[in-house]
Amino acid sequence: MNRYFPILGWGRSYTRNQMISDLVAAAIVTIMLVPQSLAYAMLAGLPAEVGLYASMLPLVGYAIFGTSRTLAVGPVAVVSLMTAAALSKLGLSASDYAAAAISLAALSGFILLALGIFRLGFLANFLSHPVIAGFITASGILIAAGQLKNILGIKASGENLIELAKSLGPNLSATNFITLAIGVSATAFLFWVRKGLRPLLSKLGMAPRYAELLAKTGPIFALAATAFVAWFFDLGSHGVKLVGAVPQGLPRVSLPIFSMSLVQNLALPALLISIVGFVESVSVGQTLAAKRRQRIEPDQELIGLGVSNLAASITGGFPVTGGFARSVVNFDAGAETPAAGAFTAIGLAAATVFLTPLLAYLPQATLAATIIVAVLSLVDLSILKRTWNYATSDFAAVAATILLTWGAGVEAGIVAGVVLSILIHLYNSSRPHIAIVGRVAGTEHFRNVKRHNVETHDTLMSMRVDESLYFANARYLEDEISAELANKPDVKNVILVCNAVNDVDFSALESLESINNRLKDAGVKFNLSEVKGPVMDKLQRSGFLPHLTGKVFLSHHIGVEALTSQS
Amino acid sequence: MNRYFPILGWGRSYTRNQMISDLVAAAIVTIMLVPQSLAYAMLAGLPAEVGLYASMLPLVGYAIFGTSRTLAVGPVAVVSLMTAAALSKLGLSASDYAAAAISLAALSGFILLALGIFRLGFLANFLSHPVIAGFITASGILIAAGQLKNILGIKASGENLIELAKSLGPNLSATNFITLAIGVSATAFLFWVRKGLRPLLSKLGMAPRYAELLAKTGPIFALAATAFVAWFFDLGSHGVKLVGAVPQGLPRVSLPIFSMSLVQNLALPALLISIVGFVESVSVGQTLAAKRRQRIEPDQELIGLGVSNLAASITGGFPVTGGFARSVVNFDAGAETPAAGAFTAIGLAAATVFLTPLLAYLPQATLAATIIVAVLSLVDLSILKRTWNYATSDFAAVAATILLTWGAGVEAGIVAGVVLSILIHLYNSSRPHIAIVGRVAGTEHFRNVKRHNVETHDTLMSMRVDESLYFANARYLEDEISAELANKPDVKNVILVCNAVNDVDFSALESLESINNRLKDAGVKFNLSEVKGPVMDKLQRSGFLPHLTGKVFLSHHIGVEALTSQS
Repeated sequence: MNRYFPILGWGRSYTRNQMISDLVAAAIVTIMLVPQSLAYAMLAGLPAEVGLYASMLPLVGYAIFGTSRTLAVGPVAVVSLMTAAALSKLGLSASDYAAAAISLAALSGFILLALGIFRLGFLANFLSHPVIAGFITASGILIAAGQLKNILGIKASGENLIELAKSLGPNLSATNFITLAIGVSATAFLFWVRKGLRPLLSKLGMAPRYAELLAKTGPIFALAATAFVAWFFDLGSHGVKLVGAVPQGLPRVSLPIFSMSLVQNLALPALLISIVGFVESVSVGQTLAAKRRQRIEPDQELIGLGVSNLAASITGGFPVTGGFARSVVNFDAGAETPAAGAFTAIGLAAATVFLTPLLAYLPQATLAATIIVAVLSLVDLSILKRTWNYATSDFAAVAATILLTWGAGVEAGIVAGVVLSILIHLYNSSRPHIAIVGRVAGTEHFRNVKRHNVETHDTLMSMRVDESLYFANARYLEDEISAELANKPDVKNVILVCNAVNDVDFSALESLESINNRLKDAGVKFNLSEVKGPVMDKLQRSGFLPHLTGKVFLSHHIGVEALTSQS
Repeated sequence: MNRYFPILGWGRSYTRNQMISDLVAAAIVTIMLVPQSLAYAMLAGLPAEVGLYASMLPLVGYAIFGTSRTLAVGPVAVVSLMTAAALSKLGLSASDYAAAAISLAALSGFILLALGIFRLGFLANFLSHPVIAGFITASGILIAAGQLKNILGIKASGENLIELAKSLGPNLSATNFITLAIGVSATAFLFWVRKGLRPLLSKLGMAPRYAELLAKTGPIFALAATAFVAWFFDLGSHGVKLVGAVPQGLPRVSLPIFSMSLVQNLALPALLISIVGFVESVSVGQTLAAKRRQRIEPDQELIGLGVSNLAASITGGFPVTGGFARSVVNFDAGAETPAAGAFTAIGLAAATVFLTPLLAYLPQATLAATIIVAVLSLVDLSILKRTWNYATSDFAAVAATILLTWGAGVEAGIVAGVVLSILIHLYNSSRPHIAIVGRVAGTEHFRNVKRHNVETHDTLMSMRVDESLYFANARYLEDEISAELANKPDVKNVILVCNAVNDVDFSALESLESINNRLKDAGVKFNLSEVKGPVMDKLQRSGFLPHLTGKVFLSHHIGVEALTSQS
């Protein structure tokens, strides 16, 4: 039971001191989350209040099922962008769009739950580090570019940089300068809060930790100030777009609707959102857990996030996951258990009840500024330079992910990244490194003749293949052995050094048989050395060994001694 | 030039004796190909004469560009079935269907040419041996099942066994018993020709080689006899379906038509047909070339087959490739150069001119019998047993290929086989074999502690990972090292034995960094041993080595000596 309900673990020994720490952290996170929730709902193409709806019940769900002590769940930038990309191409009316967002959260919840129950969390490993880093960076820039319209007060739309540029360009002349002034000053203020406020507070004598946390509450002041200005000067009638009247109070509980065509359209986006959200969330969770020598359980995390998304869907929200910035704030503010998340949910419920009337005057440009400042901190183009220095294949995967995310949108970008990294891996292993090896004089070690000064024999060819043998490289090995032998007429024995051969599949077995037969026809014996246990077991089962013209040697040294002393 | 026009190689030294051999082989292959060509056109859903059209110019194209001396190109069973599968779902009229077959051949030709020019022949390696074997076997049974309707003289259709069964069942009562009699006797005769005629001819004193070849001409007698019977008894008016009147003479040369929607519908089938055709053709070509110590050049084969398909398309044909049975006959009949193919083309042109009037009376049941007997020789279900004995993963790929080919058709079957073998490979390498190793007493060799009786140390953990480190298994390694260390409190040094690590990608590099940092926090040094040259080069470039808390040892023995003598 404790495995599936981690709350039973920490909940039973919950202390008064832990509760106080959690309440303090929850208060700070609540203040931070109000602007973010509103902003990310706008980014997802939804009414601002939906962001608040998606920040309550999901936190409670995660508190019960999640394994991280400090992860804070809710709408995050990249997932909100992916939600917008999935829904905007369906061409729905505003109410259908909101309903589809609910269905998307439910689908994503079911997918995450299923992955968790069937312990398929390892699937997330196929999203390589560089691809994720490239994708987050590219998405950050794409999101910031997409918010320019709200800063300029013009209309534009697009799912990639090209569409955005085409759509922004013709409307630039319609820029609303009051909106622009609000947007630019909010952006500048928020950047200053991020970079300048903490040092200032420290200089004024505040303890660094409190200075850090107070700085995180900066956005709420930007919201309050710009909403006041908009109300005072009646900016709405001067063309400044405001959030406008929103339904008051808590969301009503409702069930998501699934139509066949909706499920077909949303299945792939829901899968991508689930995997990307899971990977982001787990990496945040692991980073924070390691700092306090705690552990998180990836498969149980899938269940926690799955429940969170189902919770989001029945309360009129949209897809959620564990967020980086809010989790760090929660951690730094001293949260000790997931109860902090539940308290945050209560705080946000109170905010929803009391603040929604005030949202009417909030300029959309302020929310856009909040988004831009938040996402630009995710951008880190150094991944391009680091992978470039390391290996072309990693660089290619990152570059393709970034370019396709910018040029064709988030779904194309992430799919291309995953597919390309798999293809590159397969291509590399389909042309394995194969070396002729010789003995380092006076030792039992064998090294590549091209890299080391080693001893070789005319009648014996020692060949090391640096890869598991499987269908994609089986024929390549056949070709390489034939090619090498063509230049070595005196060879009577070939030894294939198998210390790097971790598996031999059926295709490769057939290739070994064909190599054995061809060498036999040429009067050359085929030997193996340093075959690993699991591979040897398979070869023994296959009936290949009795046909082998040569022998299998435990070590290559023994093989070379045996075969050269004969001749 | 010789590389792209192999004809310039053998053509310049073409002798009179070679020409005589080629002419004899061509005559025998022509007699064999007439029934097969007609039958495979019917299998592809096309008028019988189209099979003859597809057996002329493609042979000439291959003779110029192909590298196999004896490969015979034309319509083959599996590719004809794939053609029918691709076209029948488009719901076209008969004339549009024939036009679409021409476009499919052209598309396939362009794809093959492009693969050849860009030297992408290695892509065919991703079709593993067991998947191909399973696919051919399943297709053979599917083709035979699909011809039952022609043997029974009833109407039925379907692209998989389920659809065929559903479609045949209700019509069984409409069986035409004259058709059935013809079909069954033709099938029995052809099986006898295959199994019984050769021994009989040998017993009658004919040299085995000629007996073998004469037996291959059996089908033409079945055609002639049943056509005569059908004409004599006017069976057409008794409900026996005949081929009927066909246009006389040679095909007119025309260009294929491409509409956007046709290309979209046919692109994937054309790709699959190209790859499957190429793999079949190359394996036949390699088998025959090896017998005479000749070589074929896979990338040039792509060009040869590409030109053949383009030739098929401009002469009103459909997709072609190198066939197994006809190539073996060509080889056994003594063909020495691709000129035999060109002579066969002339023979078939003559047959087309003179025989087409006689086709009017040929029963379709005879062609069905020809197909059934030909394809059942391709069926070899032993691949299931052999892979079952060898490895679950290979068996799973074969079984999925066979079941999906039967249950969902050829395209689903082959795609599932390729995708599943790649996924299985990735899954296996994502959970690599990791062993704690110790020294075999008195040697410098280290082996798995679970398999061998070896020496270990309390302060030193030697761990060997039997796989390249890349994104899919990077995190798994982190987890395994943490898990092992949790049980070994005295360990001060970890050595990762890297002799099986053929590559470290960027994700894995980041994992090594994170392992290094975590071990450092736990007061444990992280060492590497037996790092291969190419991997060492990458690590050196990355800037990881200066942060490594331990050392990199050339051999694991040296590392163990150094680290245990310290403590």
